[in-house]
Amino acid sequence: MKVYTEYLKFHTRKHRDYIHITPQVEGIVKKSGVKEGMVLVSAMHITAGIYVNDNESGLIEDIDKWLEGLAPFKRDYKHHETGEDNGDSHLKALLIHHEVIVPITAGRLDFGMWQRIFYAEFDGQREKRVIVKVMGE
Amino acid sequence: MKVYTEYLKFHTRKHRDYIHITPQVEGIVKKSGVKEGMVLVSAMHITAGIYVNDNESGLIEDIDKWLEGLAPFKRDYKHHETGEDNGDSHLKALLIHHEVIVPITAGRLDFGMWQRIFYAEFDGQREKRVIVKVMGE
Amino acid sequence: MKVYTEYLKFHTRKHRDYIHITPQVEGIVKKSGVKEGMVLVSAMHITAGIYVNDNESGLIEDIDKWLEGLAPFKRDYKHHETGEDNGDSHLKALLIHHEVIVPITAGRLDFGMWQRIFYAEFDGQREKRVIVKVMGE
Repeated sequence: MKVYTEYLKFHTRKHRDYIHITPQVEGIVKKSGVKEGMVLVSAMHITAGIYVNDNESGLIEDIDKWLEGLAPFKRDYKHHETGEDNGDSHLKALLIHHEVIVPITAGRLDFGMWQRIFYAEFDGQREKRVIVKVMGE
Repeated sequence: MKVYTEYLKFHTRKHRDYIHITPQVEGIVKKSGVKEGMVLVSAMHITAGIYVNDNESGLIEDIDKWLEGLAPFKRDYKHHETGEDNGDSHLKALLIHHEVIVPITAGRLDFGMWQRIFYAEFDGQREKRVIVKVMGE
Repeated sequence: MKVYTEYLKFHTRKHRDYIHITPQVEGIVKKSGVKEGMVLVSAMHITAGIYVNDNESGLIEDIDKWLEGLAPFKRDYKHHETGEDNGDSHLKALLIHHEVIVPITAGRLDFGMWQRIFYAEFDGQREKRVIVKVMGE
């Protein structure tokens, strides 16, 4: 059994951003030598998420607007009594979820035709990390 | 260590549908011979999801109505500029999530009494697939 | 390859509650002897969830209020025709998701600085269980 780990780093220019990371994850799976197994891709922050969906710019705008509608920026979150102003970033991260686990078959991500992995930043403009851990044989 | 993979196929008659797949997943786990480990059940599409909850028809109606409320069908999604009309299907899939990972103990799904696995179709009436990958020993 | 399983038990005093369980999960990972791998933490009920976010009491209040807004208690869920009155608890559990999978590196949860694991109870005041299954080597 093999376990192989790498970390991706992000520092977005925008407060919210959606970054396509399938090529990086594929590269890590290749380096791992795992032919059959799974890869965990997990944000190491509480204001960022990982999701799988389409790499289409219009849809990404829709997702961003939808998240803002369901988990809006507001002044009056209780969390802000700590001095923070990112209550909405936490809720957006909970909605989109912070990790995915992707199957590996014959050394490749076993995805459908349109599935792509995204890093979703909800409180950017600073250093963030994602762990990619491959497990299998 | 064993890794065993099968694919389930769906072609729903309805645009949206919720299909109970616990028996199929249990059958695949049995075939795999894995006694201790995990099984990943993951939709291979960006307009479908997998979730675990109750197999009760009233609740399934509630879930469908709730998803339509939070991620409604609308004409004016940006994604529709590509010619698609299924922006809401993507958002519903993100909300329900596209995969679950279920523990296997003593050769069986280690579930609580009411937990059941569902395939959630949000853009049906065509060929769709779900990967079921068992890992363990 | 090692697989190690324990179960956590909960019986909350409140109908809804959010319980920090990182120390318990860390203890189980240590007992497992797994140095490299993953740990699955999964609610065994359809009205409870597991999530990863900040251990900050204001934020927890925000999360609770936000979930009640998006998946409110209501009389008229179809599910209530079975005699139940917890339709909202199911929807809250679907929104927050019922499981997380956490990477293990060098024998420890490989988390970012603020990540903590929570058990989210949406229909409490009775016996509930969470499975913690460690896999790796």
